Amino acid sequence: MAADFLAACRGQPVERTPVWFMRQAGRCLPEYRALRRRHPMLEIVRTADLAAEVTLQPVRRLGVDAAVLYSDIVVPLAGIGIGLRLEAGTGPVIDEPFRSATDLRRLRRLEPDEDVPFVGEAIRLLVKELDVPLIGFCGGPFTLASYLVEGGPSKSFTRVKELMLGDPATWAALAGALADLAVTSLRAQVEAGAAAVQVFDSWAGALTPGDYRRYVLPAARRIFTALGDLGVPRVHFGVGTGELLGLMASAGPDVVGVDWRVPLDEARRRVGPAVAVQGNLDPARCLAPWPVVAEGADEVLARNGGRPGHVFNLGWGVQPRTDPGVLARLVDHVHEVSPPLNRAFAAGEAPHG
Amino acid sequence: MAADFLAACRGQPVERTPVWFMRQAGRCLPEYRALRRRHPMLEIVRTADLAAEVTLQPVRRLGVDAAVLYSDIVVPLAGIGIGLRLEAGTGPVIDEPFRSATDLRRLRRLEPDEDVPFVGEAIRLLVKELDVPLIGFCGGPFTLASYLVEGGPSKSFTRVKELMLGDPATWAALAGALADLAVTSLRAQVEAGAAAVQVFDSWAGALTPGDYRRYVLPAARRIFTALGDLGVPRVHFGVGTGELLGLMASAGPDVVGVDWRVPLDEARRRVGPAVAVQGNLDPARCLAPWPVVAEGADEVLARNGGRPGHVFNLGWGVQPRTDPGVLARLVDHVHEVSPPLNRAFAAGEAPHG
Repeated sequence: MAADFLAACRGQPVERTPVWFMRQAGRCLPEYRALRRRHPMLEIVRTADLAAEVTLQPVRRLGVDAAVLYSDIVVPLAGIGIGLRLEAGTGPVIDEPFRSATDLRRLRRLEPDEDVPFVGEAIRLLVKELDVPLIGFCGGPFTLASYLVEGGPSKSFTRVKELMLGDPATWAALAGALADLAVTSLRAQVEAGAAAVQVFDSWAGALTPGDYRRYVLPAARRIFTALGDLGVPRVHFGVGTGELLGLMASAGPDVVGVDWRVPLDEARRRVGPAVAVQGNLDPARCLAPWPVVAEGADEVLARNGGRPGHVFNLGWGVQPRTDPGVLARLVDHVHEVSPPLNRAFAAGEAPHG
Repeated sequence: MAADFLAACRGQPVERTPVWFMRQAGRCLPEYRALRRRHPMLEIVRTADLAAEVTLQPVRRLGVDAAVLYSDIVVPLAGIGIGLRLEAGTGPVIDEPFRSATDLRRLRRLEPDEDVPFVGEAIRLLVKELDVPLIGFCGGPFTLASYLVEGGPSKSFTRVKELMLGDPATWAALAGALADLAVTSLRAQVEAGAAAVQVFDSWAGALTPGDYRRYVLPAARRIFTALGDLGVPRVHFGVGTGELLGLMASAGPDVVGVDWRVPLDEARRRVGPAVAVQGNLDPARCLAPWPVVAEGADEVLARNGGRPGHVFNLGWGVQPRTDPGVLARLVDHVHEVSPPLNRAFAAGEAPHG
């Protein structure tokens, strides 16, 4: 049901638990890989009809309840002139990493129509085609800062933490500028037709709760507050954020995304009753035999116990070797299994009330 | 105090909170880097007097309360003939990754005196020199299996999870064989003179609690049970294991290591009162200005609140760019700050009782 995704984000009752997959548009689909043989990633992102086509591929094939724009969280950075490239299998690589306060000058305000016109164009194409909501997205402050400062993906995040802990004033200015970038980007995506937004602060889980609260939460709060008037559901997500779920919920999103490490009932306890949850099947589980996949999905649904405010998803992006047939079957399975649970909750008979 | 480390592991009162650092022997020390310019890592590991020298370097320089043998968790695998190399900056790379049940034949029983004689030799050299306890170690079942199956370090652990979820019988045989390898290796290390042991199931945090309980905990329990008669403290550690701490404690160790993501008071709640804790300062924090390092250490100590059964450590290995002067100062700081806390607890005045 096209309406279920938005309703679930808002904590309202749904007919069937809605499903989408992070990175549903991408390497697990043969039609995407065929396109990628002809076009580099950033070229697809920057060509509205190609980006729209890739965004539509999983909607056609998988039966998901939402589309997610094919793009990358570093696209707005490239848009304001930060030199970078997307390396397949690695991630974003920044030509000249940020190392001091003077680098802040390189962050100017995003002008969506001039800097990333293809984003709005792709969204406008998509809303004409889609019969499910389109999710727009951006990177969160810590995650974008980590790419800028580390120069690319990191295992230890030592350089970005060095800046954060050693020069809090520069850090605050950087995080604030990245929050503004996020707001400008997301507002433009919603104005073009996105019906929901997700902030990927994917790597925030590398921080202690104390450091997250002090150095990242203010910028995260700024983002969600500045989007409030748009009236679209706002999702806040990171991996490995078990200890941060309550703080991430306090930033003001409608939905908190949960990876696979925290059981969903415990995640709900941490985010509190006012915020919906999204997740939380281990993406690697989708490579296992079907009964194991189904068992995992059933556990996620049982731990939610039919409560309103659950969007089914993986705990992180679809793994490239995933069989899209399994994902399609998973969508059907969640749709088939969840109505009785959802009805039981409505009738006050939830197995995990 | 040489006795404080072992006492703290056993939950007994100590004069000062003991301190050591994972990877204290290694790249942060200039004397180590000098040696590494002349010898590859595996050559140092396999040459008893070089391994002993590298093990002693941080004890001389940092004033830590325990030494940890310079070696690698894959050394016993190499000892039984698994072709592998240690790539600096990457980690272990396996020549021919495990892909099916037939690969299990490649795992034979470890004969420590023949297969890894240098380990016992280095330990026997060290116990003559050291006036602090020596910690021996091994890899945990999931972590060793992940290297064998993935062929090296992994971000997604999809291949090892595929085996685990898709072929539970082969997985159980693999995990069991790796548990036996751990037991044989650790028993030999203790017989040679190691006064404590640590099982690094470093990557177990990639698993859901349900999968950890079903597929890894039995093998972990087998390790700790089989070491019980030795009477040495046994530490169980992994990163990103916030949701697994209670399960890891239930495997039977004396101490559970805690990374930096879970505040130490919450970690203690999860492991329960019968098990000591080790950790949990963010290693990246040691690259910050000294007051920020000290503040972080003070928070760890305050959250422990002077309770017996705390070994101060980082939440993961020392980062290579760390200034060893900061580590030495950190040892002194913990030693100076902790006695009043420890005494307050003994007198029933702990700030976090």
